[in-house]
Amino acid sequence: MNSVGAVLPVDLHFDTPLQLASGASLNGYSLRVETYGILNAAKTNAVLICHALNASHHVAGYYADEPHNMGWWDNMVGPGKPLDTNRFFVIGVNNLGSCFGSTGPACLNPQTAQPWGKNFPLMTVEDWVNAQARLADRFGIEKFAAVMGGSLGGMQALSWAIQYPQRLAHCIVIASAPKLSAQNIAFNDAARQAILADPDFHDGNYYAYKVLPKNGLRVARMIGHITYLSDNDMAEKFGRDLKNGCFGFNFEPDFAVESYLRYQGEKFSHYFDANTYLLITKALDYFDPASATGGNLAQALAPARASFFVLSFTTDWRFSPLRSREIVRALLANRCKVSYAEIDAPHGHDAFLLDDARYHSKIAAYFERIFFSIHKGLG
Amino acid sequence: MNSVGAVLPVDLHFDTPLQLASGASLNGYSLRVETYGILNAAKTNAVLICHALNASHHVAGYYADEPHNMGWWDNMVGPGKPLDTNRFFVIGVNNLGSCFGSTGPACLNPQTAQPWGKNFPLMTVEDWVNAQARLADRFGIEKFAAVMGGSLGGMQALSWAIQYPQRLAHCIVIASAPKLSAQNIAFNDAARQAILADPDFHDGNYYAYKVLPKNGLRVARMIGHITYLSDNDMAEKFGRDLKNGCFGFNFEPDFAVESYLRYQGEKFSHYFDANTYLLITKALDYFDPASATGGNLAQALAPARASFFVLSFTTDWRFSPLRSREIVRALLANRCKVSYAEIDAPHGHDAFLLDDARYHSKIAAYFERIFFSIHKGLG
Repeated sequence: MNSVGAVLPVDLHFDTPLQLASGASLNGYSLRVETYGILNAAKTNAVLICHALNASHHVAGYYADEPHNMGWWDNMVGPGKPLDTNRFFVIGVNNLGSCFGSTGPACLNPQTAQPWGKNFPLMTVEDWVNAQARLADRFGIEKFAAVMGGSLGGMQALSWAIQYPQRLAHCIVIASAPKLSAQNIAFNDAARQAILADPDFHDGNYYAYKVLPKNGLRVARMIGHITYLSDNDMAEKFGRDLKNGCFGFNFEPDFAVESYLRYQGEKFSHYFDANTYLLITKALDYFDPASATGGNLAQALAPARASFFVLSFTTDWRFSPLRSREIVRALLANRCKVSYAEIDAPHGHDAFLLDDARYHSKIAAYFERIFFSIHKGLG
Repeated sequence: MNSVGAVLPVDLHFDTPLQLASGASLNGYSLRVETYGILNAAKTNAVLICHALNASHHVAGYYADEPHNMGWWDNMVGPGKPLDTNRFFVIGVNNLGSCFGSTGPACLNPQTAQPWGKNFPLMTVEDWVNAQARLADRFGIEKFAAVMGGSLGGMQALSWAIQYPQRLAHCIVIASAPKLSAQNIAFNDAARQAILADPDFHDGNYYAYKVLPKNGLRVARMIGHITYLSDNDMAEKFGRDLKNGCFGFNFEPDFAVESYLRYQGEKFSHYFDANTYLLITKALDYFDPASATGGNLAQALAPARASFFVLSFTTDWRFSPLRSREIVRALLANRCKVSYAEIDAPHGHDAFLLDDARYHSKIAAYFERIFFSIHKGLG
């Protein structure tokens, strides 16, 4: 399949203060974005991609000087791909507070000329969506053809439908949930405690000490990673395979699954910012649009005017199909247009990132409908 | 219900070296035990209780000077209880390598006159069972009426049936598994990494530094604790209840579930030895009797002569009913006597420790049968 090819990220600066749910406000910030495809003259073919915990604006393609640094959803977005960049103008944006180019904890706080660190204001999904709406303004996009995301990205898409109902025609929510469960929050907090307890964290000011809280990040990532894979998938990939054919009777990895997870944790600890990890897991914990309507999700979704496509994966135990069905039921109660697909995939939560023919054909068919509805509208 | 009342632990010393699976051997060691009830003259009414990760020999009753320190299975063991101490002589034993009185990493290594620390030899379930068999010899018990345990304790019971088939009449395996899955091992390793990375761990020699690797233990316990509870149970107990009625937008606990888990972690970090945690989780990882028979569990269990009672709990996702059914299938393939019960209980893996009428009535009925078979045998 074709790729969008070499891409260039762009930094867009915003000077109007952004009021946040916490009460704090951010005076001036920048968002790093990438775009693929061409915005049509009527500006009706724009699709916003919202990212999950550890992803970014780099959705598709590669960088000229880093040909192996492929976008995290390159199998989904590109010419002839399910989200076809020959038809749609696609925007990838790094969220505020992240660590891949948009304003976040590692940036200098203009008031102190020091990195923000742990003082960077905590954010909610709603805050991110407000920042993304300003981004749409900057592009002159009145209404997205679709806002789309998986996991935490799906929460942003859902929140778009509530916060800016007139500004998206379609809302695509993949492997997501209307809120975290107690168990989800518990895993997040165990991961946060691992980071907060790392002496190299220095209360979030590790930048000044020229160290990184790698041990904390490693453990946090190991915990997270376990929840992204299905039990069966881990059993098939690793089972009880031994690394060296026999037990070492020490604390070096005995099993292949230990080596794999430690490697994933180690890799993560070098490229991901610890303060960002804390901030994004809190945004996950906080998301619960129905909290404003006494727990009534249908009532929370009542403002929505978009058409919805909700997808889940059978072996996803982090955000199981039951959680997607809650969203679908609430939308149906509001007589929204909603399609729902439950993909029988073995790869747990991570399935939303993988190249699965049944999954991709459903997304492709949905975008086909969007494309023809745009042209019908124009005709 | 009645308790066995005030109890006294006893230390039993063993001078014959114990050869371990790792190749190391332990020259001289002691086991801390408690007993309840009276051993009959024929010594046919003895029941051995094997403990899981963080429990001990203190199965039932309390200590005269610590009236609130109840045994971990006091709801199960006592006069008139499912395992009735008016009928049976019950032995609780702290395993080697544990931290509640038996020889373990915190004890002095006689060769160095320093605490063993991380140099205490790693152990397997089979090693523990060998030590327990010597304990039976010490009591003059040729054959246990039953060996019984939950979780890791159930693995020991199962191993008894393989290693010493003539020395137990009944084998009671509760909420257990014939081996850990890749996911189980992964959670154990994430917990171990949290401990090993704690600078207060000092490569296992923290005793010399007068510190404890509390941060590592806290995180390890949080991870473990999440896997002991069911998702539904956590949802019912905590849901998304807030600790202070609103979000703090900082890293203090926002949700009740965070407070609860942090409290559990904190408590654990004060009373449990870090080296023991490492050792016991490795013993869990290593257990896999079928590894000696090319993965054929029935063949591994072929030596068994006991009658079996296998129990599981529907919401246990750590060791799900599927894992117990594997054991049952293997036993049936060998034409062993086996009863199986799957208890519809909401409390996940922890259910085996809780007072559930259906569960307890099944155990009581099974011990009733054992009791009458002993008397029939004697009559």
